Amino acid sequence: MAEVAAVSMDAVAEFCLRLGDDRLILGHRLSEWCGHGPILEEDIALANVALDLLGQANRALELAAEAEARGRSADDLAFFRETVQFRNIQLVELPRGDFAFTIARQFFFDAFSVHLMDALQQSTHAGVAELAAKAVKEERYHIRHSAEWMVKLGDGTEESRARLQSAVNELWRFTGEMFQGDRWDEEAGAAGIAPEAAGPAALKSKWDEVVNDVFARATLTRPADEFFVRGGRGGLHTEHLGHLLAEMQIVARSHPGAKW
Amino acid sequence: MAEVAAVSMDAVAEFCLRLGDDRLILGHRLSEWCGHGPILEEDIALANVALDLLGQANRALELAAEAEARGRSADDLAFFRETVQFRNIQLVELPRGDFAFTIARQFFFDAFSVHLMDALQQSTHAGVAELAAKAVKEERYHIRHSAEWMVKLGDGTEESRARLQSAVNELWRFTGEMFQGDRWDEEAGAAGIAPEAAGPAALKSKWDEVVNDVFARATLTRPADEFFVRGGRGGLHTEHLGHLLAEMQIVARSHPGAKW
Repeated sequence: MAEVAAVSMDAVAEFCLRLGDDRLILGHRLSEWCGHGPILEEDIALANVALDLLGQANRALELAAEAEARGRSADDLAFFRETVQFRNIQLVELPRGDFAFTIARQFFFDAFSVHLMDALQQSTHAGVAELAAKAVKEERYHIRHSAEWMVKLGDGTEESRARLQSAVNELWRFTGEMFQGDRWDEEAGAAGIAPEAAGPAALKSKWDEVVNDVFARATLTRPADEFFVRGGRGGLHTEHLGHLLAEMQIVARSHPGAKW
Repeated sequence: MAEVAAVSMDAVAEFCLRLGDDRLILGHRLSEWCGHGPILEEDIALANVALDLLGQANRALELAAEAEARGRSADDLAFFRETVQFRNIQLVELPRGDFAFTIARQFFFDAFSVHLMDALQQSTHAGVAELAAKAVKEERYHIRHSAEWMVKLGDGTEESRARLQSAVNELWRFTGEMFQGDRWDEEAGAAGIAPEAAGPAALKSKWDEVVNDVFARATLTRPADEFFVRGGRGGLHTEHLGHLLAEMQIVARSHPGAKW
């Protein structure tokens, strides 16, 4: 029994790290728009989404820190890990690109995250279930927002459609990572931390439904499934994550242990 | 009568521009912390304050655009004015500095803004009164947050107190601009757009009260009133505003008139 419990704690820590890292990195990328968008209201909307994601990340990293029980805090996990220790999918670490790229990436992530959080409300882990119950309300707003923009840009001007289709084409190979289950997913599934509806296969079919529906309304062409990158969950990342972390971690690392 | 009304619209436009610009620039400066603080929760708190300020700015610039009736939108005012056309006080445009500097600046502004917004709820201008009624709730949270940090840093470690006192000393000469009334303030006062309690003299005495109280609790020394900068309300700015605007306006200016 003791051994089973120990393995489960690892699985919880890994599961929560993944939840947290996806949202920490995407939240950071989105926050780069703050004050840089062409429209004040949209700036504010994106910053609100970023804040929701950073809040979810903070909670998930707290749960990861509790589960790993190595005396590290959520802040230690955010600011004192190296690139190879991050567990996010590569989709979220790509540079923000133009507005169409930002929206397409956000839409792909939202369509995944809203169903994930919905399912995680039934998690056997109370902390995860609680996080999900709050997050799913935020995600419903996020997916509505990004899907509206997908349709507005896709079914918009010639330039906006061209830019969005090109962003979709470029991002497509990064969407596979959301649904590549591994032994940690299996363990989380077996322990009920992630119920079946939160598993890769179930999420993929719900994601496809949302994407196909919105692509149709946005008059976008769905790219062929040719090649999907992998490795983010195992610590394999693009150079872009290194740059992002350098910028994100510098203040905390310049004053290690500072109490103010 | 027609002439009086025209002058009043100018006064409304000027008044709302000042409200909007202070908050647009400070909101932008604060948002620079997003993802750069040493503590995730504090990052999120500062980003929330930034968002409140940007929301207030957006509303104030909409009112300014309506009042000037020159066919410009709030976004035009934010993204297509030159440095000399900005009406913010210089306090808000200074670079973010370290965390102590950010908190001290924010505290000085909050102690001013919370009383301003409180008083503006009685404005004869319905739009301003409505903006203020929403903003005062946000400002009450902001001042509580920044005042708590003032006490925590001032009455904290030797280093945190030294840094905060040095920030206070450096910022002091920029605090005078909040209370330097001019003919536009007189006109706004006469028209009841700004009730007497929102006038420079009334605000200064309430601000002094808050500052003295918090300085005492934070064991800070209040600098002497020797020299105060002026000119921001008339378009005189530090070089820092130019850099901030270049960064803030580049996306909008790269795609003028873009609908997406």
